[in-house]
Amino acid sequence: MTVSQPDGVTDLGFARLDTARAARTGDPEVVFGQGKTPGQIVAALRALHEAHPDRAILATRLSEDALAECAEHLPDAVLDSVGRTAVLGRTETRGRVAVVAAGTSDLPVVRECATTIAVFGAEPDEIVDVGVAGIHRLLAQRDRIDEADVVVAVAGMEAALPSVLGGLVGVPLIAVPTSVGYGWNLEGVTAWLATVNSCAPGVVSVNVDNGFGAGVAAARIARRTARTAE
Amino acid sequence: MTVSQPDGVTDLGFARLDTARAARTGDPEVVFGQGKTPGQIVAALRALHEAHPDRAILATRLSEDALAECAEHLPDAVLDSVGRTAVLGRTETRGRVAVVAAGTSDLPVVRECATTIAVFGAEPDEIVDVGVAGIHRLLAQRDRIDEADVVVAVAGMEAALPSVLGGLVGVPLIAVPTSVGYGWNLEGVTAWLATVNSCAPGVVSVNVDNGFGAGVAAARIARRTARTAE
Amino acid sequence: MTVSQPDGVTDLGFARLDTARAARTGDPEVVFGQGKTPGQIVAALRALHEAHPDRAILATRLSEDALAECAEHLPDAVLDSVGRTAVLGRTETRGRVAVVAAGTSDLPVVRECATTIAVFGAEPDEIVDVGVAGIHRLLAQRDRIDEADVVVAVAGMEAALPSVLGGLVGVPLIAVPTSVGYGWNLEGVTAWLATVNSCAPGVVSVNVDNGFGAGVAAARIARRTARTAE
Amino acid sequence: MTVSQPDGVTDLGFARLDTARAARTGDPEVVFGQGKTPGQIVAALRALHEAHPDRAILATRLSEDALAECAEHLPDAVLDSVGRTAVLGRTETRGRVAVVAAGTSDLPVVRECATTIAVFGAEPDEIVDVGVAGIHRLLAQRDRIDEADVVVAVAGMEAALPSVLGGLVGVPLIAVPTSVGYGWNLEGVTAWLATVNSCAPGVVSVNVDNGFGAGVAAARIARRTARTAE
Amino acid sequence: MTVSQPDGVTDLGFARLDTARAARTGDPEVVFGQGKTPGQIVAALRALHEAHPDRAILATRLSEDALAECAEHLPDAVLDSVGRTAVLGRTETRGRVAVVAAGTSDLPVVRECATTIAVFGAEPDEIVDVGVAGIHRLLAQRDRIDEADVVVAVAGMEAALPSVLGGLVGVPLIAVPTSVGYGWNLEGVTAWLATVNSCAPGVVSVNVDNGFGAGVAAARIARRTARTAE
Amino acid sequence: MTVSQPDGVTDLGFARLDTARAARTGDPEVVFGQGKTPGQIVAALRALHEAHPDRAILATRLSEDALAECAEHLPDAVLDSVGRTAVLGRTETRGRVAVVAAGTSDLPVVRECATTIAVFGAEPDEIVDVGVAGIHRLLAQRDRIDEADVVVAVAGMEAALPSVLGGLVGVPLIAVPTSVGYGWNLEGVTAWLATVNSCAPGVVSVNVDNGFGAGVAAARIARRTARTAE
Amino acid sequence: MTVSQPDGVTDLGFARLDTARAARTGDPEVVFGQGKTPGQIVAALRALHEAHPDRAILATRLSEDALAECAEHLPDAVLDSVGRTAVLGRTETRGRVAVVAAGTSDLPVVRECATTIAVFGAEPDEIVDVGVAGIHRLLAQRDRIDEADVVVAVAGMEAALPSVLGGLVGVPLIAVPTSVGYGWNLEGVTAWLATVNSCAPGVVSVNVDNGFGAGVAAARIARRTARTAE
Amino acid sequence: MTVSQPDGVTDLGFARLDTARAARTGDPEVVFGQGKTPGQIVAALRALHEAHPDRAILATRLSEDALAECAEHLPDAVLDSVGRTAVLGRTETRGRVAVVAAGTSDLPVVRECATTIAVFGAEPDEIVDVGVAGIHRLLAQRDRIDEADVVVAVAGMEAALPSVLGGLVGVPLIAVPTSVGYGWNLEGVTAWLATVNSCAPGVVSVNVDNGFGAGVAAARIARRTARTAE
Repeated sequence: MTVSQPDGVTDLGFARLDTARAARTGDPEVVFGQGKTPGQIVAALRALHEAHPDRAILATRLSEDALAECAEHLPDAVLDSVGRTAVLGRTETRGRVAVVAAGTSDLPVVRECATTIAVFGAEPDEIVDVGVAGIHRLLAQRDRIDEADVVVAVAGMEAALPSVLGGLVGVPLIAVPTSVGYGWNLEGVTAWLATVNSCAPGVVSVNVDNGFGAGVAAARIARRTARTAE
Repeated sequence: MTVSQPDGVTDLGFARLDTARAARTGDPEVVFGQGKTPGQIVAALRALHEAHPDRAILATRLSEDALAECAEHLPDAVLDSVGRTAVLGRTETRGRVAVVAAGTSDLPVVRECATTIAVFGAEPDEIVDVGVAGIHRLLAQRDRIDEADVVVAVAGMEAALPSVLGGLVGVPLIAVPTSVGYGWNLEGVTAWLATVNSCAPGVVSVNVDNGFGAGVAAARIARRTARTAE
Repeated sequence: MTVSQPDGVTDLGFARLDTARAARTGDPEVVFGQGKTPGQIVAALRALHEAHPDRAILATRLSEDALAECAEHLPDAVLDSVGRTAVLGRTETRGRVAVVAAGTSDLPVVRECATTIAVFGAEPDEIVDVGVAGIHRLLAQRDRIDEADVVVAVAGMEAALPSVLGGLVGVPLIAVPTSVGYGWNLEGVTAWLATVNSCAPGVVSVNVDNGFGAGVAAARIARRTARTAE
Repeated sequence: MTVSQPDGVTDLGFARLDTARAARTGDPEVVFGQGKTPGQIVAALRALHEAHPDRAILATRLSEDALAECAEHLPDAVLDSVGRTAVLGRTETRGRVAVVAAGTSDLPVVRECATTIAVFGAEPDEIVDVGVAGIHRLLAQRDRIDEADVVVAVAGMEAALPSVLGGLVGVPLIAVPTSVGYGWNLEGVTAWLATVNSCAPGVVSVNVDNGFGAGVAAARIARRTARTAE
Repeated sequence: MTVSQPDGVTDLGFARLDTARAARTGDPEVVFGQGKTPGQIVAALRALHEAHPDRAILATRLSEDALAECAEHLPDAVLDSVGRTAVLGRTETRGRVAVVAAGTSDLPVVRECATTIAVFGAEPDEIVDVGVAGIHRLLAQRDRIDEADVVVAVAGMEAALPSVLGGLVGVPLIAVPTSVGYGWNLEGVTAWLATVNSCAPGVVSVNVDNGFGAGVAAARIARRTARTAE
Repeated sequence: MTVSQPDGVTDLGFARLDTARAARTGDPEVVFGQGKTPGQIVAALRALHEAHPDRAILATRLSEDALAECAEHLPDAVLDSVGRTAVLGRTETRGRVAVVAAGTSDLPVVRECATTIAVFGAEPDEIVDVGVAGIHRLLAQRDRIDEADVVVAVAGMEAALPSVLGGLVGVPLIAVPTSVGYGWNLEGVTAWLATVNSCAPGVVSVNVDNGFGAGVAAARIARRTARTAE
Repeated sequence: MTVSQPDGVTDLGFARLDTARAARTGDPEVVFGQGKTPGQIVAALRALHEAHPDRAILATRLSEDALAECAEHLPDAVLDSVGRTAVLGRTETRGRVAVVAAGTSDLPVVRECATTIAVFGAEPDEIVDVGVAGIHRLLAQRDRIDEADVVVAVAGMEAALPSVLGGLVGVPLIAVPTSVGYGWNLEGVTAWLATVNSCAPGVVSVNVDNGFGAGVAAARIARRTARTAE
Repeated sequence: MTVSQPDGVTDLGFARLDTARAARTGDPEVVFGQGKTPGQIVAALRALHEAHPDRAILATRLSEDALAECAEHLPDAVLDSVGRTAVLGRTETRGRVAVVAAGTSDLPVVRECATTIAVFGAEPDEIVDVGVAGIHRLLAQRDRIDEADVVVAVAGMEAALPSVLGGLVGVPLIAVPTSVGYGWNLEGVTAWLATVNSCAPGVVSVNVDNGFGAGVAAARIARRTARTAE
């Protein structure tokens, strides 16, 4: 049993959901799966869905067990085992976000980011396999990237991609350093340092592997652009 | 004597200006004053102004000597001795960026950011003295911040400001950690770590004291929002 | 068989308990469960309880096995599976310590701290779910916090809570950084750096996740305040 | 000319003083001298003194020039060239804080701390030259330390002093690591790490060389103890 | 089958033993168990024992499986499951090394060190439970420590012990920082930094948990002292 | 007066030159100017020139004073005030090394490297102003780079250049990270980490700003290639 | 089913192979086994082998399962369980690379490096058991090392080997720091720092344990030397 | 005026000298010049000399001004401007310590160490210019080193010297890492890490550039060896 409280907080016993957040910031609360049991995740998704029936609800960082529990108890949820997300409810998007990455190793971060973008109200456009070690493939996608409302550049190892992109287009650009690498890469800190020392001006970045955070920021920018355009 | 070359590069002898950048990314090249002589800075500003007579040209990180040289030889330039910038040419802005900071110590970064925002095409709105140690002053500015197109949160020490702001408004939010602090603060890295570990979703950040980078990113977002809105 | 030795040391074979510490510092020795077998923990609790029959004895950092062993062999012990503590004997408290935290993820540290406070002689008052990303909930608890003898602020991620609290009240304030976070947070060091770089004066702090240490310090302050008040 | 504003802020042009802080936290704002001109420091001290005529006002981290300017224009100020502080107005103290240190190298931190303690309302008792490399001198002061309301242990190099003190007495203990050392000591971080890893329970600490922060915390604890005792 | 080669190398197939080292440095090669299979360890011990029948041979860092294998196949070996060592052959000692430690947590390092000392030719004298948080117990052992030829101080957490010892006696002193600690201690680096920043002159140190290295150094010093004394 | 000693060492009083090194490794000793007086540098250059009259002798890291002293007393020396080098004697080169860099800020490192290459026997070919933020300029130089015997990529900030180059050509590639950057770049460590985490295989690197070291390595490779080719 | 695409990319579904890389850089793409399933590795090897029937194809960082899968399905592949590699196709070598290491612990890196050298077109010559703690064994191999076209020095712990080698020979020298060590060695960073701070000029290095990267670089140098020599 | 106090402390006003230390540890207190005025240093040397007329007194880390002041007011003092020390009184030595270093850059540390050794009662034997990049010079000194009572190895950059020495001789070996280096060497930490990760067993070390600390330890060992030998 859940109790909706006067101040916009729903108490689930194991967690108190801030159901008033959507009114304050325009976006509903998200269920971070890390450290929660599968049962708790299902319950939290249901409670938030009830509080916001007309919005999509997102759960991230789901373990295999949590994904299986969602599949069994939330038949309407859309699950992604690569990005480890679950979405409950209808998404509605305005504006387009290009999510660019070098290769398949970064795919989990790309997917978490793309799903977050959709839930937070913009259309994700995944463009992978365009690493700088084969620069011709990136150049071939230049126009498609240039026409997006925002670009998210997902990059591990030495993270050269955001700098190259930043020199090609003037679109707002968010970099997501990833922990992907061989040998000693400080678990993504090498990539992170690269993003904030980019020679291309205007690159902003988020924490290592934080596809969710970049997705929230990108969607907010893209949907504003589109909203005002209508 | 400067020579304009076929591929959009103007060779000043001591530097080659990428005069084709505006066509590629929408923004002209900027003169980073750090490591350049006052004379070189004046020459670079003049050359870029000639190449882009209808755009404002920005020089940043100017020493006192460089500011004096600009004052003497570029009477039309607008100089800021706090933010250490010079601007040559007319700015035209669309959209508004709230630049929020805790106090006077962060003012140089705030000013560099605000001037960059104006040169890159959006209107800066400085809101200082709203640190989290006196939370009532921040709450009093909530509506003014909420109505901006983008928020830049400039914060040193433990950099709690971006997190508090991120819980109050849903506007796109760029954090600029600063090296301001007493005692051991790792020259701003403490603040930087705080920005990428913010409990508020969607916070993106730039390098320590990089008011310029945040300004470029913020202006690109704000002017897009406004452009499409017209 | 345990042997009480002339110099206030009880030798258990696997450990020598400093039974004279209470006389010297006012507090009996504590059983750190980490690295000890369940049987050793039960034996140590018993030996200290015999040496100090009129004081509560504390064991911390207990594994699930250790908690089960205590449940079976020490029926009078009060166990807490979240804070991973066991308490044997009667607590007597003077003064009140507010233990404030942002959310449920920090609960294990909050509980370890609260139990320590009680054993070391003060009354803990847990106030959770008051993170800075929803500042209104924190403001609603201002008076309750202001009236405590000491405040312990438990905070992970960017640890903005101690700074906001330090600006609201003048009560002695101890910060406990926690290792809670998503992505790269240096296992709590980000939070730790924030606590010692707080813009609010007078914030002191302990090691990451060290609810025990903060509890000892807080209780010593609170009970002194109360003792002299009687 | 200074203008007192409705919301408890006095605007000096170069800074806005939070004159309402005393009502909120019990203590007036402090003038941090670092980064301010001598003239600004004198002006800020005067303005705060006018706003709080019955309280002592503190300025810290004063350069030699700033101390000279204070000596010339504020004849009533009490200046300390070792601790680099100026105090304007009458201090009134309740409770005693023992400030313990190993030697003369730590004296600047000891003095900043002691002066802060007095301004924030408690009596400082300096006990220097009691380093652990000559343990007999420390033991000789045991009773004097044990009878204080709070102990501040100032220690550089390997910072063994707080641990030894923490095993001798049960008084609330605040450690101040200092940057004093020969060779590679990470500018005080070695000492800082030692304070948070102390084998003595209940040790809390502040930033490197932060005598001010420790003084604020210690005075708040000591004066509360004494207030309730009356 | 092992083959003794002309240049003092015995080839075991999986390793080549430097059987000429004893002639060169006075000490035989040691078998580091880490990363070797139990069978390889037994074979290496046998080969070295054959090459040096009149000297004790040491194996360190043995897993439980390796200890069991030694127990089964090398009935003459002396095994220590705490220090994780095996010794084959007769030790002969000259000079005494005091191995001092704070408590039972450091015992594995103490034992590895003591066994190494014996194998390398000096007599170890273990003095545990003399941590600085109970300084009276350390003082009670002062004379016994002062009369040793060398002192090894094993210390984790903030590692205050070497500094206190260095102020009490003038005996050559080797510090061994250990990774023992609660909370964030950088896996022993805190202790390590403390040893090289000791306020007591003449303290030398080895790597974290390196009881073996300290034992080799201590024994070489002690047996030289004694050899010349005869 | 210098004395040539039997074992190939020339003793200058303040330094002993290893005049036998050329025979051993193929290259004469180099005069590192850092930490030496202008007079010592001139003397060392002369002594090495006398010992190797048919080889060029190199001095690096020269201060302005040292360059002036060389200009006055060594009229035959070739001086470079940007790369801070002096060369005495005739260079003879085989093979070509492309030294590629993003811009004018890296020029001092480029020049030190190029001069070293020439002294160590290969022909340097400087290609600057080809940063990744303007990728078309780099692509325009592809063939010239591809035909070199070795490529040295000099890069500061996020050091994306070596990765992009490594994807374009298969020539042996040595990366030199530089300390050039704005804001927090860890004094070149960001660039360094990027070079060893490059997504392009076969990239090797040297210390930050070590144009000399890269030049030595590059020349040894290039001249071998050319020597065997004749 | 695999589809060869117009732009030299073969799409395997789970990965897109850059089959045009050989034309661009002279070397075919390599299969990094880390993070791939055994089935994917077998499929990738087959696809690359089909695209380059006349070249050897390399797979690295193979798990035991992956090696078993290769053994079953690729009977023609040459497998190495120490270096964890698989090679499919005929190698053809020109030039010789000496791969030098201190002992058996570094063998996995040595083998990965040697196999890579062979696949990339040069002959590897492994010289192990020549650590600096037994310098005579290294000196005995001086001539064999001096006559190689390139030297790769594989070294863990304090990595003194590259410096000693660099003083003995003038052959191009690539250092591979390894994570081998006892106690606290920062997982190979100690060795890495040593390689870039070598007192011997011209030492270049790669990431920790990156035998593959050093092998690619060494082979490219050696085969060029040999190619031009013919 | 100085006052000798009952407990073996001489109060100079600016410092309190522990004149009882010699009785406790066998060695008198030392004057660390860093942070003291020239006048204070002269006064402290005089006071300690008066308290210990039959022992040599040492002052270290003297600035040029301090050395000049000593030259003027203490005509009997032996001054060393390279090692920056002053010695007052007669030294008497037993046992020999070989102080080994690679080159002239390490000379200040070598000299500080050698002077300390003499003052603390052993004979220093300086052996410089024996770096590992010219291994033959080191081998030529093997016997001289082997016959010392203790070896101190002073080494900067990658600090390979202690490891090579440790494999050559079995004499007790103390390593002193120095901050000497070109490029990024972490101000000596690279060398420090090398000393504690040495592949030669029994190497102990002190802080970066701490020639004094190594000298104290070495002298204590050497004079004991010699004392017992008589």
